[in-house]
Amino acid sequence: MSLNIRIALDAMGGDDAPDIVVSGASMARKRHPNLELIFIGDDQKIKPLIKKYKNLSDAKIIHTDDMVAPDARPAQALRHGKKTSMWLAVNEVASDNADAIISAGNTGALMAISKLQLRMINGVTRPAIAGFLPTMRGLCCMLDLGANIEVDERNLVQFGIMGASFCSAITGMNNPSVGILNVGEEDQKGFDYLRRAGISLSDETLNLNYVGFIEGSDIVAGDTDVIVTDGFTGNVALKTAEGTAKFFMHHLRQAFRSSYLSRIGFLLSRAAFMKMRKTVDPRYYNGAILLGLNGICVKSHGGADSVGFSNAIEVACDLVEHKFIPKVNDSISAAEKVIQSKAE
Amino acid sequence: MSLNIRIALDAMGGDDAPDIVVSGASMARKRHPNLELIFIGDDQKIKPLIKKYKNLSDAKIIHTDDMVAPDARPAQALRHGKKTSMWLAVNEVASDNADAIISAGNTGALMAISKLQLRMINGVTRPAIAGFLPTMRGLCCMLDLGANIEVDERNLVQFGIMGASFCSAITGMNNPSVGILNVGEEDQKGFDYLRRAGISLSDETLNLNYVGFIEGSDIVAGDTDVIVTDGFTGNVALKTAEGTAKFFMHHLRQAFRSSYLSRIGFLLSRAAFMKMRKTVDPRYYNGAILLGLNGICVKSHGGADSVGFSNAIEVACDLVEHKFIPKVNDSISAAEKVIQSKAE
Repeated sequence: MSLNIRIALDAMGGDDAPDIVVSGASMARKRHPNLELIFIGDDQKIKPLIKKYKNLSDAKIIHTDDMVAPDARPAQALRHGKKTSMWLAVNEVASDNADAIISAGNTGALMAISKLQLRMINGVTRPAIAGFLPTMRGLCCMLDLGANIEVDERNLVQFGIMGASFCSAITGMNNPSVGILNVGEEDQKGFDYLRRAGISLSDETLNLNYVGFIEGSDIVAGDTDVIVTDGFTGNVALKTAEGTAKFFMHHLRQAFRSSYLSRIGFLLSRAAFMKMRKTVDPRYYNGAILLGLNGICVKSHGGADSVGFSNAIEVACDLVEHKFIPKVNDSISAAEKVIQSKAE
Repeated sequence: MSLNIRIALDAMGGDDAPDIVVSGASMARKRHPNLELIFIGDDQKIKPLIKKYKNLSDAKIIHTDDMVAPDARPAQALRHGKKTSMWLAVNEVASDNADAIISAGNTGALMAISKLQLRMINGVTRPAIAGFLPTMRGLCCMLDLGANIEVDERNLVQFGIMGASFCSAITGMNNPSVGILNVGEEDQKGFDYLRRAGISLSDETLNLNYVGFIEGSDIVAGDTDVIVTDGFTGNVALKTAEGTAKFFMHHLRQAFRSSYLSRIGFLLSRAAFMKMRKTVDPRYYNGAILLGLNGICVKSHGGADSVGFSNAIEVACDLVEHKFIPKVNDSISAAEKVIQSKAE
């Protein structure tokens, strides 16, 4: 049996906190009995919820009245947030009382608080938000999903390296393919810094499976495992894909409801559609990592339900089990040597 | 009866040219008998195709052996392309022998050749590619889809004005809503130039229905009629939406084929699904305009079929009938006064 995995949970973050956090944690523990759970938040609210789940009877609670507001600015959360559930939850990882922290709260605040307490991996200049999307062939990892609206060549190279490690840890892939998102596949397309990042990512000493530029249509095509981009484009692309998925589910429902015949048709094809629905269900892709920090910090979608939140906990478990942080540290050091040797 | 509309067709541009150009033109003429068609390209190839369609018997052909290669760089097309079908087709509009030009050829070359021959609208510094997407509520117009990877505040303001005019001409909407694509709806999100463009677009003297920042997920939600963005983000967002649509159609087919029951289910709900398929069929949204030029230049998708190409011709017809160019000219002059008065 593997060693215990200690998870700190910001019990007050997210639209339906702390209910979803507690029920999601119970769900995750069914699959991972070796989880040690620490809930940080209002114990008056958490305790009665925990009592509902037998498998949470040994969970720890760290009480605090304070929490980060969903619309708080990062600087505000840093200055006045030292007693919030988010701050204290991150502190559990910083003090080595936990192996990972999960929050469904304010993303900007979580990034700022985590950067301060967990610090960055040596050499990493900008952290990125990385997450998974369903594709025609399985999964792809995309980053940055919104931490940095502007990036440079070095950031993109580091995103590629960290993204590949993240993808391997979660999917078990050996040498995931890495591509840079651009407006065309041809070498002369897009910005100069994309071209320069491409040249660095294809450097043999990095041992990356770099495949070149890819386009928006290639994201869900699934030929590329790790898609590297700036946080502005990545955020727009992710939300556009999510919006388009909603659009289809909406039209699908309408089509099935449009006549008696199509209603019967739905009943007959129900099993197949439920399977399809599961493939595109965002709950199963919930859990983005704040990549580049010297500790595992997973962000759950604020509107996630129990299934979604339990999935975010699983992402954290996978990363802890794969000794993700030391591995990424090693890859980044190797990359820094390549970049330095080129500069000399 | 309305006056004749004279359309110049680059018969050699696109994956299946000239076949698709000719069959698409015949299709468009069935709906618009008042079209005067001029095919520009290899008459040895065009003549036998035209003979197949009775309603093309009076079409004109301008012969040339030369055409712009699909992978030609814009500068190359400008320097060595003066005898190409694309150049000569654009020249028909520049010489007032035609009211609009449609090409399914190389986008960069079409932009460069059109800028040179048609010139820009007074005050417009950058042209944009604008097209329509299906949404939950109908249609939305998005621009720039890839003409400019970098833009500034003034470009975005002009895109908003021209996009609103384009949207009105095609959909008949009176006062379409205009939004700027960003990573969040809050005022402090994203780049400074987005904020400044937002302030200008909401200036009362422009008479625009500016609704603020929108996110990727809002594109197909359909609450905003005109979505303004830079050509890098717009291109990625459009292709991501197209890719996600393909992903769904793929899973839909798989779901229906997965068992005997679901095949029967498909037969029963077939009519409803065909209707849904039509809603998302990219052929009915084919035809992007090169906006900001002093003439109507419509770009068809290179892979469009006859239905798609005929739709691109309809876009051109709508714009001619709505006296689009003089109207945009007026709106841009008004906007320039606003921008100048602010600068003073």
